[in-house]
Amino acid sequence: MPFAPLKNDTFLRACWRQATDHTPVWLMRQAGRYLPEYVATRAKAGSFMGLATNTDYATEVTLQPLERYPLDAAILFSDILTVPDAMGLGLSFEAGEGPRFARPVRDEASIGALAVPDMDKLRYVFDAVASIRRALDGRVPLIGFSGSPWTLACYMVEGAGSSDYRQVKTLLYSRPDLMHRLLAVNADSVAAYLNAQIDAGAQAVMVFDSWGGVLADGAFQEFSLAYTARVLSQLKREGADGRPVPRIVFTKGGGLWLQDMRALDCEVLGLDWTVNLGKARSLVGEGPDGKALQGNIDPNVLFAQPAQIEAEVAKVLQSFGRPHADHATSGPTHIFNLGHGISQFTPPDHVAALVAAVHAQSRALRA
Amino acid sequence: MPFAPLKNDTFLRACWRQATDHTPVWLMRQAGRYLPEYVATRAKAGSFMGLATNTDYATEVTLQPLERYPLDAAILFSDILTVPDAMGLGLSFEAGEGPRFARPVRDEASIGALAVPDMDKLRYVFDAVASIRRALDGRVPLIGFSGSPWTLACYMVEGAGSSDYRQVKTLLYSRPDLMHRLLAVNADSVAAYLNAQIDAGAQAVMVFDSWGGVLADGAFQEFSLAYTARVLSQLKREGADGRPVPRIVFTKGGGLWLQDMRALDCEVLGLDWTVNLGKARSLVGEGPDGKALQGNIDPNVLFAQPAQIEAEVAKVLQSFGRPHADHATSGPTHIFNLGHGISQFTPPDHVAALVAAVHAQSRALRA
Repeated sequence: MPFAPLKNDTFLRACWRQATDHTPVWLMRQAGRYLPEYVATRAKAGSFMGLATNTDYATEVTLQPLERYPLDAAILFSDILTVPDAMGLGLSFEAGEGPRFARPVRDEASIGALAVPDMDKLRYVFDAVASIRRALDGRVPLIGFSGSPWTLACYMVEGAGSSDYRQVKTLLYSRPDLMHRLLAVNADSVAAYLNAQIDAGAQAVMVFDSWGGVLADGAFQEFSLAYTARVLSQLKREGADGRPVPRIVFTKGGGLWLQDMRALDCEVLGLDWTVNLGKARSLVGEGPDGKALQGNIDPNVLFAQPAQIEAEVAKVLQSFGRPHADHATSGPTHIFNLGHGISQFTPPDHVAALVAAVHAQSRALRA
Repeated sequence: MPFAPLKNDTFLRACWRQATDHTPVWLMRQAGRYLPEYVATRAKAGSFMGLATNTDYATEVTLQPLERYPLDAAILFSDILTVPDAMGLGLSFEAGEGPRFARPVRDEASIGALAVPDMDKLRYVFDAVASIRRALDGRVPLIGFSGSPWTLACYMVEGAGSSDYRQVKTLLYSRPDLMHRLLAVNADSVAAYLNAQIDAGAQAVMVFDSWGGVLADGAFQEFSLAYTARVLSQLKREGADGRPVPRIVFTKGGGLWLQDMRALDCEVLGLDWTVNLGKARSLVGEGPDGKALQGNIDPNVLFAQPAQIEAEVAKVLQSFGRPHADHATSGPTHIFNLGHGISQFTPPDHVAALVAAVHAQSRALRA
């Protein structure tokens, strides 16, 4: 049974650098702990992975923010560590501690044993994509996602979150051959994973290079960017319905390497709040091979009062400037988002103020 | 009694963008836990602040790395939080936890009560500066330092280290008036603190803006850079001996704002490892008002083997390129350093390999 036709294609149009009547907006981690209804569903599920692996729960929480706010896109509810978990590293979430792998990989034997996982082990993700797409009923597009090869490698080598990336960088600097082998397996795994999400119904896909920004200049290009490019080169260009699927790459802390990212075979670059959107637009947003830009308000703005949130939204929109407005051609476009995931402490009514401000102000900006 | 004349002025010459026969090198946090002799002295002192507040111990640990390595500068052993401690916030170091303030400032009353502290409360720092300068006996120059107004504010508002800077950014976005008042007090305090270090014998001073990089574009310029500039405008230009005192500003994660920093009234800009030194040189290192550049190897390189360390040193030196070599004029110069503080887990003999590689390779680069 085909999926319902799309009623709001503003986000997809902006991905393709086509004119829209407002700036589309969605929020990284928009289905999350700041919403009491999410907390309630998670309590029913018993745990984070209980939530992510249950199709009905994953569908329910993905749609929760759309019930509250007129967001222009939905994003699959899942975790970035599902792929290494399927490789057999043993993912768990200790209460209050973040993710942990029982079997981190740090030596030749454990890295040599890694392989692209059987995608059947990730069936729960693809089932969730199809279920969410049906539940959306064409309301807005659904974004699928994965961690980048480098970001997955950080967790796989460290075994958990890290403040100094000592283990993964020790491997990188002392055994670059092993690091390349690990990243190649990750890239091919991520590509298969995103392709299966596309087959299941994802209408756009996003690669989260959350830890690319911890790398040194030179190392970033060799150990992160090259493997993101390897993922992109393997991605399907069309979904099961024959529609083209835009690809978004977000490197947290990657603002210094925007010119390098211009060469990526993707449509959209995500930016964090340290980047000036106007400068980014002139570096990578103009010209026939320009990228759409996504971002980049500081999530901490949401702790201020609505009037102040509106003023900060105005700064971000004005920093990008007037988006492309000619419906016959393509040109610079902006997708509004946070520069990183939303905080669990965010007051939900402040999110409403932000979304309303983006829609109202971006219409006025075009007038 | 005047201090002994300086035997090795390579570091100071490079600060002033004068030609040198090798690239000077020192390491952020070079007196620290990776050295067994430091651990032994700290054990005698009983605690970190016991070490920092005792003139003899502070002198002893400052000189320890110079006994092992032919470093081109010494840096005062102290903590960046001495100034807010002197303001009465109650600094303590819990074992394994990092610094904590008993009385963080988050509201109008507590911020309104802040004032530039009596410099007599920081006498132990100035005594240490004079003692270290005497103990150095002219071997290499002594660098004094302070946290930047914004970086101090992060700790003062959060009350401890933070992963999301939620409290300090909530204050910034919701009560920018209070944030400006706090930063003004911090800037005037830091200026008085650095001036007293200069009077006591510091031959260069460095402002550590360790958390400037967490700010959004726009907020960085308004809440960090402007107050670093306020510090610089108040600094003494000469030490007690009549010699000019160069000023270094290091913003971790500030690579995107180098062009803004060019306008700072300082001689040297510190860079972290995400910055390409060649690009930084062309942005801010050339021309009569150019800055000397300091940095920027990833401290994690020190976990690789000596041959690999040497190869990474070569990349950093070559990225900067050939330094200015004409003894009659000034021009682009490079001071080798890490892009952040050295890790406590660093093997001491790897530091020896790094320092030797910088000296040997940078001589060859000039030949």
